Amino acid sequence: MFRVTRRYPFAASHRLHSDRLTEEENWRVYGKCNNPYGHGHNYVLHVSARGPAAQSGSAVPIGRLDELVAQQILRPVDHCNLNMDVEWPEQMVPTSENLAIEICRRLKRNWSSVFRGDWPKLEKVRIEETPRNIFEIRADEIE
Amino acid sequence: MFRVTRRYPFAASHRLHSDRLTEEENWRVYGKCNNPYGHGHNYVLHVSARGPAAQSGSAVPIGRLDELVAQQILRPVDHCNLNMDVEWPEQMVPTSENLAIEICRRLKRNWSSVFRGDWPKLEKVRIEETPRNIFEIRADEIE
Amino acid sequence: MFRVTRRYPFAASHRLHSDRLTEEENWRVYGKCNNPYGHGHNYVLHVSARGPAAQSGSAVPIGRLDELVAQQILRPVDHCNLNMDVEWPEQMVPTSENLAIEICRRLKRNWSSVFRGDWPKLEKVRIEETPRNIFEIRADEIE
Amino acid sequence: MFRVTRRYPFAASHRLHSDRLTEEENWRVYGKCNNPYGHGHNYVLHVSARGPAAQSGSAVPIGRLDELVAQQILRPVDHCNLNMDVEWPEQMVPTSENLAIEICRRLKRNWSSVFRGDWPKLEKVRIEETPRNIFEIRADEIE
Amino acid sequence: MFRVTRRYPFAASHRLHSDRLTEEENWRVYGKCNNPYGHGHNYVLHVSARGPAAQSGSAVPIGRLDELVAQQILRPVDHCNLNMDVEWPEQMVPTSENLAIEICRRLKRNWSSVFRGDWPKLEKVRIEETPRNIFEIRADEIE
Amino acid sequence: MFRVTRRYPFAASHRLHSDRLTEEENWRVYGKCNNPYGHGHNYVLHVSARGPAAQSGSAVPIGRLDELVAQQILRPVDHCNLNMDVEWPEQMVPTSENLAIEICRRLKRNWSSVFRGDWPKLEKVRIEETPRNIFEIRADEIE
Repeated sequence: MFRVTRRYPFAASHRLHSDRLTEEENWRVYGKCNNPYGHGHNYVLHVSARGPAAQSGSAVPIGRLDELVAQQILRPVDHCNLNMDVEWPEQMVPTSENLAIEICRRLKRNWSSVFRGDWPKLEKVRIEETPRNIFEIRADEIE
Repeated sequence: MFRVTRRYPFAASHRLHSDRLTEEENWRVYGKCNNPYGHGHNYVLHVSARGPAAQSGSAVPIGRLDELVAQQILRPVDHCNLNMDVEWPEQMVPTSENLAIEICRRLKRNWSSVFRGDWPKLEKVRIEETPRNIFEIRADEIE
Repeated sequence: MFRVTRRYPFAASHRLHSDRLTEEENWRVYGKCNNPYGHGHNYVLHVSARGPAAQSGSAVPIGRLDELVAQQILRPVDHCNLNMDVEWPEQMVPTSENLAIEICRRLKRNWSSVFRGDWPKLEKVRIEETPRNIFEIRADEIE
Repeated sequence: MFRVTRRYPFAASHRLHSDRLTEEENWRVYGKCNNPYGHGHNYVLHVSARGPAAQSGSAVPIGRLDELVAQQILRPVDHCNLNMDVEWPEQMVPTSENLAIEICRRLKRNWSSVFRGDWPKLEKVRIEETPRNIFEIRADEIE
Repeated sequence: MFRVTRRYPFAASHRLHSDRLTEEENWRVYGKCNNPYGHGHNYVLHVSARGPAAQSGSAVPIGRLDELVAQQILRPVDHCNLNMDVEWPEQMVPTSENLAIEICRRLKRNWSSVFRGDWPKLEKVRIEETPRNIFEIRADEIE
Repeated sequence: MFRVTRRYPFAASHRLHSDRLTEEENWRVYGKCNNPYGHGHNYVLHVSARGPAAQSGSAVPIGRLDELVAQQILRPVDHCNLNMDVEWPEQMVPTSENLAIEICRRLKRNWSSVFRGDWPKLEKVRIEETPRNIFEIRADEIE
C-alpha cells in the first residue's frame, strides 16, 4: 500500500466575507482578509491517493490524476477570483478550509470516471495557502 | 474535520549535556552537540490543531493561536539559549525531543484559556531542528 | 562593503488590464492575467542595501529597514488588491515590473528619513511573484 | 512516543521499462520515462523512526541511523543507474514505489544489527522523486 | 531596466567521461560521476533576460520565453540522457558548465526569431544541478 | 567564464555584544541578539568561485573546494559557539557581516594551497543567517 502525493501550484485571489454577518462582525472575524477588494495567494494543492502498485510498478497513474485535477480544479480556479469566478455552494466563504472540502468533493465525485478499478483511492487534500498556513482534510471524512 | 498547521520559525542555541553522565559519556552520547559553549539552530515549529469549520468557514482562529504560541513559546525561547534562559523541568537536556514535549505541554495547559469550546483541539507538535532533522509528537500521547 | 538583503512576504491580488487597450488587446497582451475579477499571489519582496560595517559590526540596521518597509510598502499592499486599494501613478498596470519600480521609488524617497548618514544605500529591489517568476531592478537606474 | 525523520538526498538515474511488455505497451504505460537511455533525479529519501526518548533525551541515535542508511542505501544507489548498478529483485522496474519498498525492506532487515533494543522502530519511508512527486510506504505494511 | 528571471525544472541523467582520458584519469577527474551507467538530477534552469518595460508594463513576454525554452531546451533534454539523447558539439562532456554554455548558445541563436525588437536581451543562464551546486554564465561572455 | 557556487550549511550560536559599549548601549544596538547566553542559527554559507572551464569541462574542482571549506571554516565553526570557540581578530563581534569577512579572508589566504593555477578565483561569500537575512561580500573588495 502506497501513498502517492502530487503538488499543484495555482494563483488566486479571495475575500473572506459572509453575507450573514454585519460589516463590523465580518471585520472582527476575518480581519484584514475582509478587505473589500480582496487579496491573493500562490496556493499549493497537494492531492494524495492510496493504493497498491500495479504490475507496472506504479500505484497511481500520474497522467490521469493530472488531467482530473486540471479539469476539475485548476482550470476553474487558477488565475481567478475565488469569490466571483468559481461556482461554489451558495454562501460559501472561500476560506482554505472550505476550498479544501470543495476540491475534495469534486475530485471524489469525478474519481471513478478516471480511475476505473478499486484502486487508487483519494486519501487526502492539502492546501498550503502560504508557506506558513496549511490545511488538510481526509477524503473519507466527507461525503 | 480539518487539520490546520501553522509554522513558527525561531532561533535558539543549546548544548546537549547531562549532569548525570561523565564528561566522556556525554561526548560519546551527544558527539559534537556536547560542545561546552553550545551551538544553535533556526528551528521551525509546526503546531497542528484539529476541528470542524465554524460558521465563519475557519477551523482554527489563527490570530488566537498566534497569541498563544507567542506568549507561551516564542517569547521565552526565540533568540535565547535553551540551557540557560528557559525554565524547563529539572535536569531536562534540551534535545528537540524534549523541546517538543515541553512545547506540547505548555500549549495543552494553556489551550482552554484561548480556545473556549470543544474545538479546535491541539493535535501535533513538530520541530524542524534543521531542514534534515524533524521531530514530531502527538498531543494525545502526553499528559 | 556588504550587500545585506532582507526578505518580506506579502499577499495581494491584481488584474493586468490597461485602459488604453481594447478588451481584445488586453486579452492578447495579458492572457489569463486579464481575468476581470483578478487573481492573487504570495509575493516575496527582497530589499538589498549596500554599505560598510559600522563599529557595531552591522552594515544595515535591520530594525529600521523593517520599519521603513512596513510603513511604506507592507501596510498599503499586504492583503490588498493592487488595482483598487493602493495609490499608484495614474494608469499604472500593476505588473511586477511596475510594482518593483514603485516600491523602489518609495523606499528611495523615504530612505534618508530613516538612514541618516551616507550609508547604507538602497541597492536593489527584487520581487518573486511566484517561485518561478522573478523581477529585479537596481535603485541607481531609476530616478 | 516520538517520530523522528531524517532526510537523505541522493542522485540517480533510471529507466521505466518492463521486459514483460512490448515496446509499444512500455511507451503507453511509462511515457517519456521509458526513454531508452534513461533520465535522472535528485531523490530525497526521508526515513522515519518511532520510539520513546531514552534517558539521553534522544529517541533515535542519528549517528547510527546515518551509518545504516549510508551502508544499505546511499552507497549502492547514490550517483548510480538504478537499472544497471543496483541489485534489485528480478524484473523489478525501478519506479519510486518499488524503490520505496526495497529501501524499506533493506532497512528493516538490517535494523536490529544497529538498534539493539525494542526501540526505535522503523515507521515510514518517503521518497521525493521531484519536489512535485512524493511516495510513502509504512514499514508495518510490508514483510 | 529590469532583470526578469524564469525557472524551468527538468530531469535528466548524465555520465562525466572524456574519451580523451584513460579510465583511470577519468575516475581521478570525475570521481563517482564517472560511474559507467550514469546518474541523474532534477536540474533547475534559470533564464534571465534584461530590458525596459514595454507600454504593457511587462519587460519580457513570458509566454514567448516559455515557448523558446520548451522548443530549444526542454523538449530535447527533459527526461533524457544527456550523453546519448542530445546532440551536443563533438566530444562535449555534459558537465553543468558545458550544459550552461550550450543552453545559452541555443537561446541566443534563436532569440531573434521570438523577440523581434532590441529588447529584451538574454542576460544570464543559471543551472542548479542540485540545491547545493549552482552554475552561472553570462550571455555576453560567449559568442 | 563561469561562476560556480556551492552551499555549505552549518549550525552555530553567537551573542552580539561589544566590550566597547555599555550594557545599555549594547541592548540598544543589538536588541534581543544581545541576550547574555546567546542564541543560534542554521547558517548557510555560499562560496562562489569564477573561472573558465578546464579541459575536463569543470570550472571548479568541487572536491578540493569542499576540503578547503571543511578545513578552514566548517571544522572550527560547525556546532560551535562563535564567541567562545573560534579564534577571530580581537574584539570582533560575530555579526554575519564580520563572519563573512573573516570567512572570505581565510579562504583567500589558503586558496593558492588548493588551487594552483590562475583559476578559479574566489569571487563572493554569502551567508544566509536565516532564510530572511542574507549577507554578501565580494572577495576583491577585501585585502
